[in-house]
Amino acid sequence: MHSPVVPVPATAQAIRVMKFGGTSVGTTPERLRAVAERVAGVHRAGYPVVVVVSARGSSTDELVADARSAATAPSAREMDQLLATGETAAAALLAIALNDAGVPARSLTGAQAGIAAAGRHGDGRIAEVEGTRLRDVLRRGTVAVVAGFQAVDAVGDVVTLGRGGSDTTAVALAAALGAATCEIYTDVPGVYSADPRIVPDARLLTRVGSGVMSEMACSGSRVLHPRSVDLAGRAGVSIHVRSAFTDRPGTTVVPEETGGDMLENARPVTGIAHDADVARVVIRPGNLPHRSAELFAALGEASVAVDLVARTGDRDNGYGWDFTIARTHVGTLREVLSQCGGAADIHESVAKVSLVGAGLLSHPGTTGRVLAALDAAGIETYSVSTSQVRTSFTLAEAHCERAVDLLHREFRLDRPAAAAEHGIAV
Amino acid sequence: MHSPVVPVPATAQAIRVMKFGGTSVGTTPERLRAVAERVAGVHRAGYPVVVVVSARGSSTDELVADARSAATAPSAREMDQLLATGETAAAALLAIALNDAGVPARSLTGAQAGIAAAGRHGDGRIAEVEGTRLRDVLRRGTVAVVAGFQAVDAVGDVVTLGRGGSDTTAVALAAALGAATCEIYTDVPGVYSADPRIVPDARLLTRVGSGVMSEMACSGSRVLHPRSVDLAGRAGVSIHVRSAFTDRPGTTVVPEETGGDMLENARPVTGIAHDADVARVVIRPGNLPHRSAELFAALGEASVAVDLVARTGDRDNGYGWDFTIARTHVGTLREVLSQCGGAADIHESVAKVSLVGAGLLSHPGTTGRVLAALDAAGIETYSVSTSQVRTSFTLAEAHCERAVDLLHREFRLDRPAAAAEHGIAV
Repeated sequence: MHSPVVPVPATAQAIRVMKFGGTSVGTTPERLRAVAERVAGVHRAGYPVVVVVSARGSSTDELVADARSAATAPSAREMDQLLATGETAAAALLAIALNDAGVPARSLTGAQAGIAAAGRHGDGRIAEVEGTRLRDVLRRGTVAVVAGFQAVDAVGDVVTLGRGGSDTTAVALAAALGAATCEIYTDVPGVYSADPRIVPDARLLTRVGSGVMSEMACSGSRVLHPRSVDLAGRAGVSIHVRSAFTDRPGTTVVPEETGGDMLENARPVTGIAHDADVARVVIRPGNLPHRSAELFAALGEASVAVDLVARTGDRDNGYGWDFTIARTHVGTLREVLSQCGGAADIHESVAKVSLVGAGLLSHPGTTGRVLAALDAAGIETYSVSTSQVRTSFTLAEAHCERAVDLLHREFRLDRPAAAAEHGIAV
Repeated sequence: MHSPVVPVPATAQAIRVMKFGGTSVGTTPERLRAVAERVAGVHRAGYPVVVVVSARGSSTDELVADARSAATAPSAREMDQLLATGETAAAALLAIALNDAGVPARSLTGAQAGIAAAGRHGDGRIAEVEGTRLRDVLRRGTVAVVAGFQAVDAVGDVVTLGRGGSDTTAVALAAALGAATCEIYTDVPGVYSADPRIVPDARLLTRVGSGVMSEMACSGSRVLHPRSVDLAGRAGVSIHVRSAFTDRPGTTVVPEETGGDMLENARPVTGIAHDADVARVVIRPGNLPHRSAELFAALGEASVAVDLVARTGDRDNGYGWDFTIARTHVGTLREVLSQCGGAADIHESVAKVSLVGAGLLSHPGTTGRVLAALDAAGIETYSVSTSQVRTSFTLAEAHCERAVDLLHREFRLDRPAAAAEHGIAV
């Protein structure tokens, strides 16, 4: 009689945290089983495994539609109770599929996993992870399948974590359990130097620093949400974002101090992000008398993020403002503006294109090179904003894809960093 | 300036517990709004209201199908985590609809409502209701919308309550909060003297004792589950089961000691229940040598309920058994039998028809009258079993509907009790 030989790696005690998105766990039984098989492989290799899941496929959209058909303005508290059921159900189904694959597994809601929230309903922040139950489950050799996107407040109510919530759950659990890496399995191979649907020879980035990744995420790269990247950076956790459908490694986002950027970014530009759903707001000098602070406070209160903010005008003739917002926020902006007695030109067919990299300002000339390349192609740019990690500009939405492609070539982002550095064109 | 005049009845502080089933809250936004309007009316009349809801429409069936596609034998613990999301979502949606109707409302899971469970996953029993949170919600003038069918165990896991669970939740909350009545809104007008699809002039019973109601429920009447009836009887809570779609009163099930049967049942027979999904099991004398206790213990362990049990044979030639089970349990029975080394004749096309009423044995001749009426109609009966509250017999499934109709006429159940008593035919 032999007991089966299970290869136990030296790092057997290293906890693996694996997060799967809605398209991975969701759309068909085959996909769910494929996820279960991947997790089972890691479990059989001897690792304690925590899995975090999003709601399946379109289930969140369906719940939102149900709520909308019940009320024009559903309360945030009830939306949280409602939407969290999507992740809870997905976690239970994955646990069921894991059991079927011979792997002991237990699904846990955010509350059961000890994830405590602060902040408003629909927009919670993880305040603490009380990991006793999770560690108990892992100690018994059981896979813990945690519902993402949800936490619990002091009175036992569900608080959801807003956009990017499930990624944030995964990073927070990795941090709380001392895992070095949080693996985020998604429907793309990783983070590219630009959107590969626009730039066919965009390069898969193997290693990116969390600061640069955060800027890319804020600038329109949809692979990771900036919140999870920022949390990982602060907590010293690496994120490995990769395809749920292949075994190929993806992109590792390393915490800033680990020096990921040093490796990847001997050149200034890591990638080009774009956001085609932008509105540009221009408040001419004198059109918002003395109430700028009030305007921006009210926008913050309404969770309207502003970007590429520039003040125009002067003290004598009055100040004006130029900034961008997400196009979905235009209605809210108009309301806030009218309350402040202000007037603005709102350009809704605008896109934002951003070069992101560590130390852009240490490479003077980057902005000039961008503007020259676009000018030569006859593409007009509107507002421009530059920081050490990002150079962003707005342009007509119709020119967005061409600008991304053009700048990707201009900065030789199709080639590995070293080759580009020794290349001719720089 | 006038504040709106809300009529506050003298019983304003009497808590109303209202339970709505899956077809009421579920299938369309209009239905959900209709439920919200009904609850809103009660709230506006000044009552503190607790609403208990089942999962919407077919959502439980869909979750079960999802689980079955993920595993052949999903664990009971994970099924509980999964299925409970159906009721949680329904509760949130009703709270959203109530808010939209201008009624403050808050949805609560079983755990949030303080409903503690004992027993196995998938088959829990309510051990305790810790009503502090519920009372807090009611004190603020807010409607509490509680997810039915679910409770929480000592480690914070969901335990569902099995068949009839949501009704049981409602009765338990009524008992815990001191409500005299639990209102169960369903898709039929109440409890009838026989199935009105079979007997067109079946009479809606206005008042039934909990003991008789429990027997009717056990004998095939699907309106209420016997568990909730038994709990209500023990807790001294009345159940008012009525249509969710009309304002007409339905059937009030009164706790035994209140003497409901005395009012309704000056005659012995209250109603006729039938169950067409029965199998009759006949173990001939000598075919289960010395292992009867083991057989029945194993069936209990497997949650296979047996009914109409009769022992046949004698000590010298060995004993045999004759009993009925639900037809869905035939597979389990065969397994258990083969483990016990027994053999049985299993008749799968059998129905069970039951006359239910208080004090049947105090009216000798009832059984004889049943057999004579059926015999005159050429309907053969198989096993017969009689107790103080029920006379049941099995017959060929094909004869079930005709037998129900015939006995309903034989016992004049289409007429109110008093009229029948003074009628000629008795």
